[in-house]
Amino acid sequence: MNSLGHVTPQSRHFNEPLPLQSGAQLRDYTLVYETYGTLNADKTNAVLVCHALNASHHVAGTYAGQERSEGWWDNLVGPGKPLDTNRFFVIGVNNPGSCFGSTGPTHTNPATGRPYGADFPVVTVEDWVDAQARLLDALGVTQLAAVLGGSLGGMQALGWSLRHPNRLRHCIAIATAPNLSAQNIAFNEVARRAIVTDPDFHGGHYTAHGVVPKRGLRVARMIGHITYLSDDVMASKFGRLTRNGGGDASSRFAYSTQDIEFEIESYLRYQGDKFSDYFDANTYLLITRALDYFDPAREHGGDLAAAFAKARCRFQLVSFTTDWRFSPARSREIVKALVDNRHAVSYAEIEAPHGHDAFLLDDARYHALLRACFDNIAKETEAMKSAPIFTGLAV
Amino acid sequence: MNSLGHVTPQSRHFNEPLPLQSGAQLRDYTLVYETYGTLNADKTNAVLVCHALNASHHVAGTYAGQERSEGWWDNLVGPGKPLDTNRFFVIGVNNPGSCFGSTGPTHTNPATGRPYGADFPVVTVEDWVDAQARLLDALGVTQLAAVLGGSLGGMQALGWSLRHPNRLRHCIAIATAPNLSAQNIAFNEVARRAIVTDPDFHGGHYTAHGVVPKRGLRVARMIGHITYLSDDVMASKFGRLTRNGGGDASSRFAYSTQDIEFEIESYLRYQGDKFSDYFDANTYLLITRALDYFDPAREHGGDLAAAFAKARCRFQLVSFTTDWRFSPARSREIVKALVDNRHAVSYAEIEAPHGHDAFLLDDARYHALLRACFDNIAKETEAMKSAPIFTGLAV
Repeated sequence: MNSLGHVTPQSRHFNEPLPLQSGAQLRDYTLVYETYGTLNADKTNAVLVCHALNASHHVAGTYAGQERSEGWWDNLVGPGKPLDTNRFFVIGVNNPGSCFGSTGPTHTNPATGRPYGADFPVVTVEDWVDAQARLLDALGVTQLAAVLGGSLGGMQALGWSLRHPNRLRHCIAIATAPNLSAQNIAFNEVARRAIVTDPDFHGGHYTAHGVVPKRGLRVARMIGHITYLSDDVMASKFGRLTRNGGGDASSRFAYSTQDIEFEIESYLRYQGDKFSDYFDANTYLLITRALDYFDPAREHGGDLAAAFAKARCRFQLVSFTTDWRFSPARSREIVKALVDNRHAVSYAEIEAPHGHDAFLLDDARYHALLRACFDNIAKETEAMKSAPIFTGLAV
Repeated sequence: MNSLGHVTPQSRHFNEPLPLQSGAQLRDYTLVYETYGTLNADKTNAVLVCHALNASHHVAGTYAGQERSEGWWDNLVGPGKPLDTNRFFVIGVNNPGSCFGSTGPTHTNPATGRPYGADFPVVTVEDWVDAQARLLDALGVTQLAAVLGGSLGGMQALGWSLRHPNRLRHCIAIATAPNLSAQNIAFNEVARRAIVTDPDFHGGHYTAHGVVPKRGLRVARMIGHITYLSDDVMASKFGRLTRNGGGDASSRFAYSTQDIEFEIESYLRYQGDKFSDYFDANTYLLITRALDYFDPAREHGGDLAAAFAKARCRFQLVSFTTDWRFSPARSREIVKALVDNRHAVSYAEIEAPHGHDAFLLDDARYHALLRACFDNIAKETEAMKSAPIFTGLAV
């Protein structure tokens, strides 16, 4: 199994406005993306990988001269890996509103000549899908072999199956949900309040004040991390271990309300600090809102099966037993809606201790499943050369 | 079933220093408390009710001239209620470090003449138990019929059974745990960081600056509320209901990252605002730390059964199926440790949808259980008049 080696981001500017679900539009925008592997002559082997909250177009490989710059799904994507770049042309796109290169709140608002900040329009999963579709147009990819994503990325994969049903053959949605529960929204809202009420937020125009609402970002990230990990993995990784040694009476407590006493506190503070150094606060608000808004059943009176009636691709759903953020029950709701439509769906509930984070880790059963899944898609893609499938569908 | 009617808090000053688990001491202090019912001639019918994070000595009854001033457990405590004040002498004490009357961070530090603020010593569950014991000395109560508490109050009840094993006949610990899990500590830590990093915190000496770290308190309370409610009850109470009407497409989304869109956001903001108006930030830090520190097994190499070897009272444990903060599994750990010691223990796992909050609500099965429990204790107390039980035990 080899690494992709060095990869290079590319970018493309779009002059045509992107109409948004909110009724607003993005006047013009740039998308930053990466591709790995080679698009075959028939252009049938493209796989789009959608990112979640704090990730980007940099899915796999490393950047020249940058140590530890592996892409966020490097364990999955590369030559000989489950999503094999010797067989597939893999595309990672940074979504608009993000802070890793594509047009977002830190960029100049053409209407004012100043950074968008809080004026960046609210974007939705559907808007991202549309922006991704335009990039595919530009790359000459009319139909994707698959769209793959975990968590919020899984929502984009589902969004593809509904918004451009004939432009993908497989939807692979991992550790995701058909919408956020009240509890999910609640966690997002607390994180947003921490950011928005940070005095350095300045109504979202902190750049003009030369500051960053780091306190709010830290708290937001700490909350996030609690929901990404399972109770079990937190117990086994940290338990009640104290910073001065063991979890028993051999180490005295420091008896302080503000200093770090337990290892879990140290871990969370570190994660919060790191995040606040690189992530944009307005992007955090936008992306958590995109999560809140995603709800394909909404236009169908809450009937998820009705929402999926228009889908045409095959589905692979995956969930993890200890994921309490997007629990298996939420994936099963999607599976039921697909079965109700007699759509082709395969579902795997992986017993893994790592909670929501499991979708990013290389659990053996999970990766074996995805390897088999992509192996089948590759064979199907090969077979299309002699007898094209789906070509009768309007694109 | 009648209400207690109007009740009046009392207070008592203690000049003898209270030695604390940390090695520090509280030089002198006042405890505010309330009592309901009448102490019998034998002084055998006293029940101590311990409060949790944001409650106080005001357990039941109302204050004259104050509407909606019912005590926090008024549904449980009163004449004819499950904890019947016609039979029992019920005592509620505000713990030191709190912000409802007993000596705490908002009071004057005798060493400096200024408010304690962040210099208030770190207090533990064991320290509170000791302070409560001194109040009982002053009230002439040598042995309690029962100590009752939920959540952090349940930890105090357990603490009583270990710290003053012969001073109580029954320990009733509800929705509690033998210690906090890493996830529990994590939630506390995020809440504390929100408070401590609020620029209005001023290292805990905000009173001197004439401000209150309300932003931090709001976020802390919002996080707390998420953990008090079950996912299910949030779903049934709020679901994905939007502020402008229904949860379906009949109401347009407002598409805003900062305005309230979903009802759950409105609820959490309201709870946060209300809390920040009355609760002291240093008290929040102290009380969450007391939760973190509680761990009776710690001095016994993590062996909870060894910790409970010294207990002498009977135990009633109660948990609620949807409580994910202190889940039934945590109560079962305590039950196992008690059974291992052949202590008398009864355990009820109540199927209730309300999550951790259930211990404050008047679920029929839960209240029937407590009614039966206190009825038995009352009968036992009656029987003691003719043939005293436990009098052979050192007090």
